[in-house]
Amino acid sequence: MLYFRSDYVEGCHPAILERLAQTNMEQLPGYGEDRYCESAREKIKAACGTPNADVHFVVGGTQANFICICACLRPYQGVISAESGHINGHETGSVEATGHKVLTLPSADGTIYAEQIEACLKEHFEDHTAEHLVQPAMVYLSHPTETGTLYTKKQLTDIKRVCEKYNIPLFLDGARLGYGLTSEYNDLTLEDIAALCDIFYIGGTKCGAMFGEAIVITNDALKKDFRYIIKQRGALLAKGRLLGIQFDVLFENNLYFDICRPAVTYALRIRRAFEEKGIPMWGNATANQQFVLLTAAQIEHLAKKYNFEHIGKYDENLSVIRFCTSWATQESAVEQLIADIKEM
Amino acid sequence: MLYFRSDYVEGCHPAILERLAQTNMEQLPGYGEDRYCESAREKIKAACGTPNADVHFVVGGTQANFICICACLRPYQGVISAESGHINGHETGSVEATGHKVLTLPSADGTIYAEQIEACLKEHFEDHTAEHLVQPAMVYLSHPTETGTLYTKKQLTDIKRVCEKYNIPLFLDGARLGYGLTSEYNDLTLEDIAALCDIFYIGGTKCGAMFGEAIVITNDALKKDFRYIIKQRGALLAKGRLLGIQFDVLFENNLYFDICRPAVTYALRIRRAFEEKGIPMWGNATANQQFVLLTAAQIEHLAKKYNFEHIGKYDENLSVIRFCTSWATQESAVEQLIADIKEM
Amino acid sequence: MLYFRSDYVEGCHPAILERLAQTNMEQLPGYGEDRYCESAREKIKAACGTPNADVHFVVGGTQANFICICACLRPYQGVISAESGHINGHETGSVEATGHKVLTLPSADGTIYAEQIEACLKEHFEDHTAEHLVQPAMVYLSHPTETGTLYTKKQLTDIKRVCEKYNIPLFLDGARLGYGLTSEYNDLTLEDIAALCDIFYIGGTKCGAMFGEAIVITNDALKKDFRYIIKQRGALLAKGRLLGIQFDVLFENNLYFDICRPAVTYALRIRRAFEEKGIPMWGNATANQQFVLLTAAQIEHLAKKYNFEHIGKYDENLSVIRFCTSWATQESAVEQLIADIKEM
Amino acid sequence: MLYFRSDYVEGCHPAILERLAQTNMEQLPGYGEDRYCESAREKIKAACGTPNADVHFVVGGTQANFICICACLRPYQGVISAESGHINGHETGSVEATGHKVLTLPSADGTIYAEQIEACLKEHFEDHTAEHLVQPAMVYLSHPTETGTLYTKKQLTDIKRVCEKYNIPLFLDGARLGYGLTSEYNDLTLEDIAALCDIFYIGGTKCGAMFGEAIVITNDALKKDFRYIIKQRGALLAKGRLLGIQFDVLFENNLYFDICRPAVTYALRIRRAFEEKGIPMWGNATANQQFVLLTAAQIEHLAKKYNFEHIGKYDENLSVIRFCTSWATQESAVEQLIADIKEM
Repeated sequence: MLYFRSDYVEGCHPAILERLAQTNMEQLPGYGEDRYCESAREKIKAACGTPNADVHFVVGGTQANFICICACLRPYQGVISAESGHINGHETGSVEATGHKVLTLPSADGTIYAEQIEACLKEHFEDHTAEHLVQPAMVYLSHPTETGTLYTKKQLTDIKRVCEKYNIPLFLDGARLGYGLTSEYNDLTLEDIAALCDIFYIGGTKCGAMFGEAIVITNDALKKDFRYIIKQRGALLAKGRLLGIQFDVLFENNLYFDICRPAVTYALRIRRAFEEKGIPMWGNATANQQFVLLTAAQIEHLAKKYNFEHIGKYDENLSVIRFCTSWATQESAVEQLIADIKEM
Repeated sequence: MLYFRSDYVEGCHPAILERLAQTNMEQLPGYGEDRYCESAREKIKAACGTPNADVHFVVGGTQANFICICACLRPYQGVISAESGHINGHETGSVEATGHKVLTLPSADGTIYAEQIEACLKEHFEDHTAEHLVQPAMVYLSHPTETGTLYTKKQLTDIKRVCEKYNIPLFLDGARLGYGLTSEYNDLTLEDIAALCDIFYIGGTKCGAMFGEAIVITNDALKKDFRYIIKQRGALLAKGRLLGIQFDVLFENNLYFDICRPAVTYALRIRRAFEEKGIPMWGNATANQQFVLLTAAQIEHLAKKYNFEHIGKYDENLSVIRFCTSWATQESAVEQLIADIKEM
Repeated sequence: MLYFRSDYVEGCHPAILERLAQTNMEQLPGYGEDRYCESAREKIKAACGTPNADVHFVVGGTQANFICICACLRPYQGVISAESGHINGHETGSVEATGHKVLTLPSADGTIYAEQIEACLKEHFEDHTAEHLVQPAMVYLSHPTETGTLYTKKQLTDIKRVCEKYNIPLFLDGARLGYGLTSEYNDLTLEDIAALCDIFYIGGTKCGAMFGEAIVITNDALKKDFRYIIKQRGALLAKGRLLGIQFDVLFENNLYFDICRPAVTYALRIRRAFEEKGIPMWGNATANQQFVLLTAAQIEHLAKKYNFEHIGKYDENLSVIRFCTSWATQESAVEQLIADIKEM
Repeated sequence: MLYFRSDYVEGCHPAILERLAQTNMEQLPGYGEDRYCESAREKIKAACGTPNADVHFVVGGTQANFICICACLRPYQGVISAESGHINGHETGSVEATGHKVLTLPSADGTIYAEQIEACLKEHFEDHTAEHLVQPAMVYLSHPTETGTLYTKKQLTDIKRVCEKYNIPLFLDGARLGYGLTSEYNDLTLEDIAALCDIFYIGGTKCGAMFGEAIVITNDALKKDFRYIIKQRGALLAKGRLLGIQFDVLFENNLYFDICRPAVTYALRIRRAFEEKGIPMWGNATANQQFVLLTAAQIEHLAKKYNFEHIGKYDENLSVIRFCTSWATQESAVEQLIADIKEM
């Protein structure tokens, strides 16, 4: 059985495992104050082109999301998100558990637009009874989005301008950032993201690490006391070295991007194979997740050899099926899948 | 200027003020343990036909809503509500501030249906990754709704059946209950509501009292320690007598219903005046709030003599305007308004 | 039976009731935006000598406390309080329900000292692992305290200096402020309190109003968006006029102080009567609450004619008993009690 | 430099690293639903003698603590803890961040007693105004305690009896459980703990794992929907296999206990070396943490060769110093330290 189910079905990139083994018996301070964390922070800041940024490591994406959000908001404020945003639908209300409402905007393709955000803010601040409403006070984006689409540099720049106008932070969930930045359809660099976002994170869990997300804070106003919140929310790893070592390896010699790029190439090849076969895709995903509309018979046929994710019913005949590649995907598996698509 | 802006522009029914004056210097225990509270509780239980219910008084509707909701839910659970529900849009995220997500269902007229609720519950509990989602665990309705519509007895009974099937409580926001139950279009009695809901409240603030809502808990499982939550959330009035006295007066000789009924009659007469004039209504409101679509010229004309609420733009030419009556509305004012509508 | 149980056993001062009756059918905007609220705010700012302060009205003391506290703190911060502070022991964890820890300091008489507060702050900020601890970020005091004692001007000034040094707000709970400021033992004026505190409230519930507390914010940094929090926490009274009218009456012609002063005089006369009789007092209360140590026999004797509060056992023989006076206490009742003490 | 600073200065036991390497490229389901998690759960249940228990893995101790606590409490309830409890002082108010107060009891040695707990519960439930207080509704213990002491079987059994009488759960923090259960002074087995506690956890982070705590729920009433809370609080590791593999190794052939036992033996040898030298210990620690009172000169002397933790000043001359051993401590390092103590 060949797995295209998700991007976290294997352990981690072998180089990480090796480094963990090499350093295992070193005696190091806890809580992220060791030299590997320090080294990883420096590499990430260099890669971002933001020498003054603060970098913090946490274990997972849900943690990263609610910590960044609750750190920035006052009690009556909420975060603007696409309705399809991960924080809105797949994190068991973790943002609400910190007391804040997720204010959703409709989205056709997983992304939202500056115009929508500005309209939402304008409507709020022009309402003379605004205090009866949750105040929109932060923007949450994911890149790539939950449906595998990407923000353009223009789209992100426009959003940033609205955020600046209303003086609210722009937060980007980069759980799959490696796959976004290495897509041929992407026109954003890591430096662009660091320049445009006030706070964002670089995903490790899905991009080669065993676990770990690197939060980057570029806005000085958001830096103060961030470690208190990480600790309070159970995200300050005792053996912080584990996070430092992993990101130190990933940001050495461009490894992070080098292992993500092939995954996206493979995903786009799978997409084209379906398209050439005349099988309809669902949406316009351009990163490592591809969504295809298959009939029950097609699903049954492919399921004999491949493990993939059923997202849901599309209509009476078709279902949305996700094929997901990762740093660990084998080219041979992709070629087999493509061959089988051709023969369908 | 004649006010049709809202149902809380005056103080309170004179009979309440009189009783407050009569009892003012009586020395009574605090926190709802006085004899007026006791008497009011007995009258409310009798009116509901639920001798075993628990009755608690709080000061306002937002308090009543979030207290009832957070008292019933575990941390990862959410409350199902129409998208137009008051808790979703007009209480500054007070439910989220207690840690819970409001799970919205679309609604054409302000009400939601058993089928929608069941579909939402079914989808959740059939999802094998349900723990990544907020668990729907309570239903919130308002009667009348925020747009002045009413649940039918059948609609409410069907919802109750779904709640029982999934073993979740049905909660009804009765901030304007007096105006709902006295509408000629209503087929629900207070007894029906008490029989069908696990927890609900009878609104005083908008129905003749200075302030106050009476929470009725009919489901034994929800009664335990309710006063702790009321106190913790700042809703246990020190001089609880003020709430007891007000509800004691309102539930004496049917006063509550007797003062609400004319308001609904007036509102429906205003509605018919607009309809007869060929002016379109917005929605099918059948209680004390009526929403009409007016042009800028029409608004300007009526605004010379009447004070009403602009809800928002409907399209390029029309705005949604609310006319609201209350226990304090004078018949003469209504007649004048109707005459002026006729002459428009 | 003569009541000395608490300071909220009657309704309200007759002048308030009269004004409520006079204004009852006036049609006024809701949520504190009426002209009576505006007038009351102006009078309070004048009385405080702080023309630029913001004044907000809420219904009760628990609300006032947790709203002021959660409005000022970030998620990982806590509030410093005497162990005997009302927020620590008698509000069902309402501060914790907003996510914040109450950081307690020991107190012999209900007050805390600048030295204690400074030591607490110093210890925290010198700890290199401070992020594992709740950050002390606000000081909560009550004047008079829960045990009837008073801060001196020097003590409050010293505390203010520490707060300024650490840049944290000083918050004063004035639920019984009227009785504190009118004690012959008090050397603080309302102007002093407004000058020294960043945020505080003037209690109405226990000082002549039916209900209501006036929050005064003198520190500009704390003013922003305060109404959002009031609304979110269920404390924005729909008929805000009720609060405005009450405080407007109380701050007209010095009524607030004029009705509180006699209560304190009576309480101190009762204290002296016990002392002259050789009956030991508990603590050195100098406002309207007096705590006396009585034997079971003495309690039984007085309980025949007087209603008072049992605070708890002091030792095997003695119990702590509270006698409380208020704006409504009759001089004749005090004289009778004093006569009965003399004859014990 | 030889490290006795804490029990998390190294990576993990080599057997764990080896197993992680062996299984690294296996494709496994996420979120704890893989076969290694299943196997680890079975081994833990067998070791506990509780075949019907639920076992969940989370990453760290702070997570384990606040998740277990907030899963069991209703909003107005609090958890009883020794004042020295880790949740009270060293987790940045993470329990309060879930809305609950930590109700502290004084403790001479880090443990609390059934009598204290019962007195606290009795006082609460006998108070006729109990709803003004946080309701004590859970007991938190740690074994070993934060100061290295141990509960006796009798002490724990007595506490359990009180919990049963008041129908509240008993929760045990076993962050260092391996070191507690293998002390020669301990008379509790893992089976005893599983039989006496409603919910507890077995610490991995400090006992040989890279990270991870295994929560064991023996009380059926506490099992429902536990995974929702784990997910909501950011503690459901995407690659749950990492936790499963680690605990599977630790509970194979008794490894967990075999690697903890020497650490305790070493710690007690260090203790005896100080005692024989006439140097006073602080408290009566009997597990892997030992606290000794040293002068500045003694500290300076030992600090040349050893890295240890300064807990704080004891008096003018002495400081509390912690020596901590772990599964990774080398016997040679211990012998050197003992030799150096002898020569002091």
